[in-house]
Amino acid sequence: PDKGAGAAARARQAVLTKPPGSLGRLEWLAEWLAEWQRRPVPRLERVLVLVFAGNHGITRRGVSAFPASVTAQMVANFAAGGAAINQLCAAAGAELRVTALDLDAPTADFTEAPAMTEAEFLAAVATGYGAVSADIDLLCVGEMGIGNTTTAAALAAALFGGDGEHWAGRGTGVDDAGLARKRATVDAGLARHAAALSDPLAAAAALGGRELAAILGAVLAARHAGVPVLLDGFVSTAAAAPLARLAPGGLDHAVIAHASAEAGHRKLAAALGKEPLLDLGMRLGEASGAAAAVPILRAAVACHAGMATFAEAGVDGKE
Amino acid sequence: PDKGAGAAARARQAVLTKPPGSLGRLEWLAEWLAEWQRRPVPRLERVLVLVFAGNHGITRRGVSAFPASVTAQMVANFAAGGAAINQLCAAAGAELRVTALDLDAPTADFTEAPAMTEAEFLAAVATGYGAVSADIDLLCVGEMGIGNTTTAAALAAALFGGDGEHWAGRGTGVDDAGLARKRATVDAGLARHAAALSDPLAAAAALGGRELAAILGAVLAARHAGVPVLLDGFVSTAAAAPLARLAPGGLDHAVIAHASAEAGHRKLAAALGKEPLLDLGMRLGEASGAAAAVPILRAAVACHAGMATFAEAGVDGKE
Repeated sequence: PDKGAGAAARARQAVLTKPPGSLGRLEWLAEWLAEWQRRPVPRLERVLVLVFAGNHGITRRGVSAFPASVTAQMVANFAAGGAAINQLCAAAGAELRVTALDLDAPTADFTEAPAMTEAEFLAAVATGYGAVSADIDLLCVGEMGIGNTTTAAALAAALFGGDGEHWAGRGTGVDDAGLARKRATVDAGLARHAAALSDPLAAAAALGGRELAAILGAVLAARHAGVPVLLDGFVSTAAAAPLARLAPGGLDHAVIAHASAEAGHRKLAAALGKEPLLDLGMRLGEASGAAAAVPILRAAVACHAGMATFAEAGVDGKE
Repeated sequence: PDKGAGAAARARQAVLTKPPGSLGRLEWLAEWLAEWQRRPVPRLERVLVLVFAGNHGITRRGVSAFPASVTAQMVANFAAGGAAINQLCAAAGAELRVTALDLDAPTADFTEAPAMTEAEFLAAVATGYGAVSADIDLLCVGEMGIGNTTTAAALAAALFGGDGEHWAGRGTGVDDAGLARKRATVDAGLARHAAALSDPLAAAAALGGRELAAILGAVLAARHAGVPVLLDGFVSTAAAAPLARLAPGGLDHAVIAHASAEAGHRKLAAALGKEPLLDLGMRLGEASGAAAAVPILRAAVACHAGMATFAEAGVDGKE
C-alpha cells in the first residue's frame, strides 16, 4: 500500500465542502482505494468481477437443497446472461468473467480423503492468480458451487476454531435434517484432517473447493498487483481467509461487500475484524453482494474526485 | 398502490434462477416499486432528486457549528456542481433540482413565535407539491439548511414524544455546549407551542423549516402521482413524518435510504416502523444518502427485469 497516497486522500477529504466526516464510510473508502491503488485520487474505470465455479464431493452427503447438476447449469446461465450476477454487473458497469474448474471431476468427499491433492489445489490457486492483471482498478470475487457453504463452514472452523454447529447455516435453503447433515459433515471433515489444519493452505486443500482455491489465488494476485478487492459473501470470504491467517494484514486490501444472511458470515467477518459495507439480506453468492456494492465505491470516488473545496466554492468553514 | 402489480412481481421473483429469497431486500424492493409504480416490472428511467433549502430563525441561538450564511453558499455550490450531491446524482444517473426557499427571510425563532404563519407554511408545501410530476419513476428528497437538525428534532419530538435530550444530536458537529443549546432550544419550542402540537401539520408550521414543509409537499405529491420515494436522513424523514401521523400507512410509498449517524434518525426510523437500506455512517443531508441508495434500487430492478426463470434457463429446482 502507498501510505502517502492514502494521507493525501485524507487531507483532501478534510477540505471538501461538507462537515468533516459527514460522508462516513464513503470518505474511508476513498482513502482505502487511494492507498491500495497507489494514487491520491483513485479511479474505477475498470472493475472486474471474477466468478469461479466448482463441484464438491460432499454433495453426496445431502448437504444442499439443490442437486449438484445445478453448478454446471448455472454456469450456462451465466454464459447466457440470465443470472443475477449478469444483471448486477451490467448495472454496476463491471466486466464479468466466469471460470468453471473441472466441473466433471468434483473434489473428493472431505470426510473420507483430502478434497484436493496438493497439485490440484495449486492448479486451482494458479487459475485464480492468473485471472488478475495490474490494469484493473477493482476486483470483485464470487463463486458458484452446489454444496460449497458446507465447504466454507469447514474451512472457517479450521481457521478460526468452532465446529459445524457454529459455522454451518441453511445455505440455499436446507431443512432441519439437511442442516444436521451439514453440521455432521463439517465435524467429520475436521476430525478426518485434524493433523493438517494448523496450516491454513493445507486446510484449504484438505477441505477444498476448487472455486475457493481460485478465489484465494485471485485475491493474492490482487495484493501483488495493487488492486483493491471486494469480497462477496460467506464462501468468498472463507476462501480468502487463509491469507489473513498466513500474515497479519493479509486481507487489508479487501473489504467485505455485504453481510450475507448465511449464518456464518457475520461471525467470519468479525473474526477477520471487518465490517461489511451492505446488509441487504442477500445470500446468493455469484459475487452478487460484491457487485451490488460497486456503486457505493463509485459514489465514494465521485465525491472524492469531483467535489469543490471550501476555498474553491467560497463556503465559510466552522465558526 | 396496485396490489396486483406487487403480487405479479412477487410471483416472478419466485421463479427466477436463484434460491427463493436469496436476493433479500432486492426482491422486496422490486415488489415495492412494482406496487407503487403500478406495473409488474418497475423501471427507473427517470429518477429525480429534489433538494430544498431554507434558513432558520433559531440559528441565532448557537445551534450549529456553521454560520447561517452557509445555506446560501451551499446553494451556490449546488448550482456550480461542486457539492457531494452533484457527484452522487451523476454517479446514480439521477436528475438534481435545487429549490431555495426565501433564504433572505429566515423562519421566526420558534422559541418566541411560530416559525411560519399558515400562509408561509402552505406556500412552502405547495412549492414542494408542485415540483413532482407523474412522469418520474422515483423521487429522492433532501435538504440544506443551517440549523435544521434542531428543527427536525423539535418536530420529531412533537410528533412522537420525547424531548430535546432524546432527539437532538451533534448535527454538522457542535461541541458539548452547542449540543446543550440545541436541546434547550428544542425544549423551549415544545413548551412555547404545546397547545398546537397535537395537530401534525400545525406542529410542522410552528416548528418549521420551509425546506421541511416543501419536502412534506413533495412526498405527498408523490403519493398522489404513484411515485415511490427515497427519504434521505434525519431532517428529510422528520419533514415527511407528519404524513404518517395524519394517516396510517401515509408513508408506505417511502423508504428510508440511509440510517444517518445523526443521533435521532434511528429512533425516528423505528418510530415509523422503517428499516433504512444503507448504514454507511453518513450525516450530510443534501439527499446524499438517498442518492447513494439509488443504485441499490437499480440493482433490484435489473435483477427483476433481466433474470431468466428456472424454466427458461433449464436449471433444476430444489430437490
